[in-house]
Amino acid sequence: MNKFLGENFLLESETAKKLFYEYAKDMPIYDYHNHLSAKEIYEDHKFENITEAWLKFDHYKWRAMRNLGIEEKYITGDASDIEKFRKWAYTLRRLIGNPLYHWTHLELRRYFEIYDILDENNADRIYDLVNEKLKEDKYSVRNLLKMMNAKYLNTTDDPIDDLKYHIKLREEGFDVVVRPSFRPDKALHVYKNDFGDYIKSIEDKFSTKLSNYDDLINFLIERLEYFYQNGARFADHGIEEVLFEKSKDYDLNAIYKKGLNNQYLTKQEVGAYMGDLLTKLAKEYRKRDMVMSFHIGPIRNNSTRMYEKTGADSGFDSMNDRNVASNLSQLLDTIDYNDQLPKTLLFNLNPKDNVTLATMAANFCDDYHPGKVQFATAWWFLDNIKGMKNQIEDMANAQVITTSVGMLTDSRSFLSFSRHEYYRRILSNFFAKLVENGEYPDDTEFLGSVIEDICYNNAYNFLEKKDDASE
Amino acid sequence: MNKFLGENFLLESETAKKLFYEYAKDMPIYDYHNHLSAKEIYEDHKFENITEAWLKFDHYKWRAMRNLGIEEKYITGDASDIEKFRKWAYTLRRLIGNPLYHWTHLELRRYFEIYDILDENNADRIYDLVNEKLKEDKYSVRNLLKMMNAKYLNTTDDPIDDLKYHIKLREEGFDVVVRPSFRPDKALHVYKNDFGDYIKSIEDKFSTKLSNYDDLINFLIERLEYFYQNGARFADHGIEEVLFEKSKDYDLNAIYKKGLNNQYLTKQEVGAYMGDLLTKLAKEYRKRDMVMSFHIGPIRNNSTRMYEKTGADSGFDSMNDRNVASNLSQLLDTIDYNDQLPKTLLFNLNPKDNVTLATMAANFCDDYHPGKVQFATAWWFLDNIKGMKNQIEDMANAQVITTSVGMLTDSRSFLSFSRHEYYRRILSNFFAKLVENGEYPDDTEFLGSVIEDICYNNAYNFLEKKDDASE
Amino acid sequence: MNKFLGENFLLESETAKKLFYEYAKDMPIYDYHNHLSAKEIYEDHKFENITEAWLKFDHYKWRAMRNLGIEEKYITGDASDIEKFRKWAYTLRRLIGNPLYHWTHLELRRYFEIYDILDENNADRIYDLVNEKLKEDKYSVRNLLKMMNAKYLNTTDDPIDDLKYHIKLREEGFDVVVRPSFRPDKALHVYKNDFGDYIKSIEDKFSTKLSNYDDLINFLIERLEYFYQNGARFADHGIEEVLFEKSKDYDLNAIYKKGLNNQYLTKQEVGAYMGDLLTKLAKEYRKRDMVMSFHIGPIRNNSTRMYEKTGADSGFDSMNDRNVASNLSQLLDTIDYNDQLPKTLLFNLNPKDNVTLATMAANFCDDYHPGKVQFATAWWFLDNIKGMKNQIEDMANAQVITTSVGMLTDSRSFLSFSRHEYYRRILSNFFAKLVENGEYPDDTEFLGSVIEDICYNNAYNFLEKKDDASE
Repeated sequence: MNKFLGENFLLESETAKKLFYEYAKDMPIYDYHNHLSAKEIYEDHKFENITEAWLKFDHYKWRAMRNLGIEEKYITGDASDIEKFRKWAYTLRRLIGNPLYHWTHLELRRYFEIYDILDENNADRIYDLVNEKLKEDKYSVRNLLKMMNAKYLNTTDDPIDDLKYHIKLREEGFDVVVRPSFRPDKALHVYKNDFGDYIKSIEDKFSTKLSNYDDLINFLIERLEYFYQNGARFADHGIEEVLFEKSKDYDLNAIYKKGLNNQYLTKQEVGAYMGDLLTKLAKEYRKRDMVMSFHIGPIRNNSTRMYEKTGADSGFDSMNDRNVASNLSQLLDTIDYNDQLPKTLLFNLNPKDNVTLATMAANFCDDYHPGKVQFATAWWFLDNIKGMKNQIEDMANAQVITTSVGMLTDSRSFLSFSRHEYYRRILSNFFAKLVENGEYPDDTEFLGSVIEDICYNNAYNFLEKKDDASE
Repeated sequence: MNKFLGENFLLESETAKKLFYEYAKDMPIYDYHNHLSAKEIYEDHKFENITEAWLKFDHYKWRAMRNLGIEEKYITGDASDIEKFRKWAYTLRRLIGNPLYHWTHLELRRYFEIYDILDENNADRIYDLVNEKLKEDKYSVRNLLKMMNAKYLNTTDDPIDDLKYHIKLREEGFDVVVRPSFRPDKALHVYKNDFGDYIKSIEDKFSTKLSNYDDLINFLIERLEYFYQNGARFADHGIEEVLFEKSKDYDLNAIYKKGLNNQYLTKQEVGAYMGDLLTKLAKEYRKRDMVMSFHIGPIRNNSTRMYEKTGADSGFDSMNDRNVASNLSQLLDTIDYNDQLPKTLLFNLNPKDNVTLATMAANFCDDYHPGKVQFATAWWFLDNIKGMKNQIEDMANAQVITTSVGMLTDSRSFLSFSRHEYYRRILSNFFAKLVENGEYPDDTEFLGSVIEDICYNNAYNFLEKKDDASE
Repeated sequence: MNKFLGENFLLESETAKKLFYEYAKDMPIYDYHNHLSAKEIYEDHKFENITEAWLKFDHYKWRAMRNLGIEEKYITGDASDIEKFRKWAYTLRRLIGNPLYHWTHLELRRYFEIYDILDENNADRIYDLVNEKLKEDKYSVRNLLKMMNAKYLNTTDDPIDDLKYHIKLREEGFDVVVRPSFRPDKALHVYKNDFGDYIKSIEDKFSTKLSNYDDLINFLIERLEYFYQNGARFADHGIEEVLFEKSKDYDLNAIYKKGLNNQYLTKQEVGAYMGDLLTKLAKEYRKRDMVMSFHIGPIRNNSTRMYEKTGADSGFDSMNDRNVASNLSQLLDTIDYNDQLPKTLLFNLNPKDNVTLATMAANFCDDYHPGKVQFATAWWFLDNIKGMKNQIEDMANAQVITTSVGMLTDSRSFLSFSRHEYYRRILSNFFAKLVENGEYPDDTEFLGSVIEDICYNNAYNFLEKKDDASE
């Protein structure tokens, strides 16, 4: 029997241990997509207690608690921090076979050196123990990042963000490079109720007029250049459903204006708008050698009752199951036709899309960069052992696994970086299994170098433009 | 090598054996959804021979026989019982890797204490052996249920059923509680050819007029109350495709009348009708603290040629692959908006929907009951080792596995209860594997109690209203 | 640790080894669908070098090379053969967990008795070594086929093909039976731009007029009969999206004419046309006891930029993800209604369709032939360990695995036949695992006979009509 979270956790053979301990474990981290706060990093925030660090924003945990029937009062409500923590400890014990169980205990071990198994019986003791530690300087958010050997971070930022804290961090020269990334979702989602308000807020903030679709394009390109000048290398796009129509058949300006006025848009109109906007932005990303990322497939705020109570991003999202292949093919083809396709990462939320995306990505690879378009790592509801194994296996079958840019946290928690270890163990075990099964030669030196690449070097090469003048 | 169906069947470690033998094995059974005949239970039916018990209604077996090229004469035709049994024995041997192979041999062992491997060579001998036993009193259907330690059953009944035998059984006080369940499919499927006939049959039987949609609603609620008063705790709904439209945009009465007259209905009209009817019924279920269940995704009677020959439910159904997320989200959201969502079980037939349903269910959980809305156990074509493992793993990843109400037979066979053992072995092995792999602490006492809950207690708590006045 | 591609490759137990070595290994091959050139077989072609044999047509390898960022010059461009080979060797080493890695090394071993691990370091040496061997007579394509114990082949041919080389081979009495197969895709794809040109080319070549849809039908049936008389037993159909409408509601002749003139056709029109044409052809296949095969689900030529450069079939195809169940059900039902359904193989490209197709196939089985309609072996992007395992497991669960017609290469490479060994190892291991786990009795004699059937006998019986007068 393997000890819980012991040194051989997820490592099923000597080869796996060798690959993990000799190659994967000590590689630095390039966390190329997360939701960390640059402000909190700049201010080197310290947490008041573990409830703030773990439970204030973590809708994964909230969702699990509701699943168990915990009252909302203990989740987003006005219960005290210790009460919330107790309910979390009670929940945690029941998360058998769930990644939150591993993440939480990995965090206790790797950040706090606490090896207890947290449950309802020792919740109070652990609460005090962790809180005591959190007072120490080593638990400031900057030190937490350094503790985990993070070298680069990409936060997630709206085009209207002034990037004040990114700029300050850069000026100051903080050891960990904190890059903004460009996420123009609100400009992309022309069909959403708040599209008009968003454009209005731009006009107010920048004292400008975005009267036409072209004005919006120009504005976004200006902001992109600003982001780029301030270190952005990554542009992310949340895409609930991949829609696409040839833009020449539509009056994009009319669609834009309907969006401003919150008028009904057909799926075709939305597809024409999104297809055109993404094509134009992609060209700009490519011009700057940036990476474009698509996060495809959530349905947001499924429970209106709870949305009205707790707002967005509070644990009521799940996965859509729309067909994705044909529209995504047309979108990528359109961007690619004049050789304007940047390095691209395709993330799916629904596992039914794994192989569809992996094989689609391979259609658009060329000598611009190894793994130019790639099926990206398991995301959100797939960010668990099964999801990760499948992502690695499916990419290996349909693309070339040595080009993978690997793992990211996608988290707003400063304590989430031990998830890289989780991924690295799964990755090492995957390669080791091939060797153990006679499916790949026992060449641990080469496999080790590939693992180092997937853990860090590939992301570094994918994202850090070598002849970067703006750096 | 593990012996075929030996004591360690599906149990890969000492932990698995411990969990199964010390916790799972002896728990009673709450078979919360099946198609048993209350009449046969009341009359304590005895089978003439094993062909009647095994082959008279079992379209799983029929289908397998056709697959092998057996003539219909030996399946639903006029061949003798021994001839049919011989063909089944021939088929069985070839069902390598198929759950029917395990189910059949488990039944021979657990019900009849026959440890032979049935095949074409010993068919006649086994036929006589089993038939001899079937004459004994211990093989009456009531004794079969008790032999398997069943405590509660939910049969499946049309709203127009008078529940005569359920009432008699209750009055008599049979040890096993036999509850009816409410399955208003024929009222729901407004788009089917026999909808008008069904409504007509209600009008005739109950000497009433269902002239308008509201009359139907009122009738169904009256019947639901009748079912509830006579012990129903479960309402099941067969949903071939999840359709939904906001009912306020449609004239429901006009749709109802089109249905009566067998006129063409658009998918939108069907979606408006089904969405509205389910919303109204759900409110009534919730009022009575009942459980609502959706069985999503079959295509029925794919072969018209054979439908004309052998009728419905004779082995010509398979799985549809429609997109389900968006409409299901809207349906559940509409029911939930005024906090009228009852405890709900979501069953999918197509495995591509596993994680979609599991994550969707989690959107609607709250403190009404642990696991209030849950991704339910592997059904029909998924009711096999792979399907069960995936259901358990996917629920563990996306929800909280400790709340699962576990297994049901969904069968019309009195010999199917040994399938609970099959599930319990898979469940015990799943938990054990987590321990063996270091993914969960070696706390067999706690895990054992969770297994007991999933085997029986959770279903009991989910279904047996505590302050039930009508009991 | 299992040695790379050692004798126990993919065989995890003694039972697996026994099943593979005593039963599977030496069975002959019926390669019932491939893209080999009858001309090359007739002329007994010899390869100039290994680059010709491996890299001249293999878009699987091209795609992998592009994925790694190799310049097109070394793929389809004008680099020298040794340069291309070096790039391939470099790529190969990085195809960790990819079937190309296994296929390539199996080919080196089984055809050339070269046991080196090919990579960038020994590329030149291996290149010379293989090329030296390729000069020997035993490496002519006929001898390659015999070396692998191939007994029957079905090539893939357009209805307008004169089958000159098939006829010559037959007259000559070459040991391996080389059958043509009928693939009327160009007549089926009425929606494609080149449909009119194709019909025109028929009119020119055959000095006929296909003025109406009926003329086309008659022409195709004539050609089918010609194919049948010249040995065809297999008809294959590439179906990008399964569309179906009842043909009686449409003017098929009008649709045909729109197709000729390259006019826009709705999906309904295409569905009516394809449904009708396939129904009529199916009847003719059944009349001749031929096998009908559907290859469902690719998107072709996703990159227009590269299509313009390198043409079709050069590595830019991937999988679509359309819903398939309902239309496929209607199509098969329509063909089946008058009992005109031939033996049918359903191949899916998207793994989300596995169980959908397996359960759909079972709806249409009867006593015409064991496994009359079957979920067919893993194809193209699924032709890897995971895909094969899943196909076998899913078919075993949903159909009767003993009826499976097993593996085919679907390749245009004369060196691809060692993939049958790959499949046979996976198959043997699948059966052995059931025995090892106690899921099937330890009856290796019976299991061995089933394996022999799946490796060869079933395909032979499925395809070689017993009372065949035309043979």
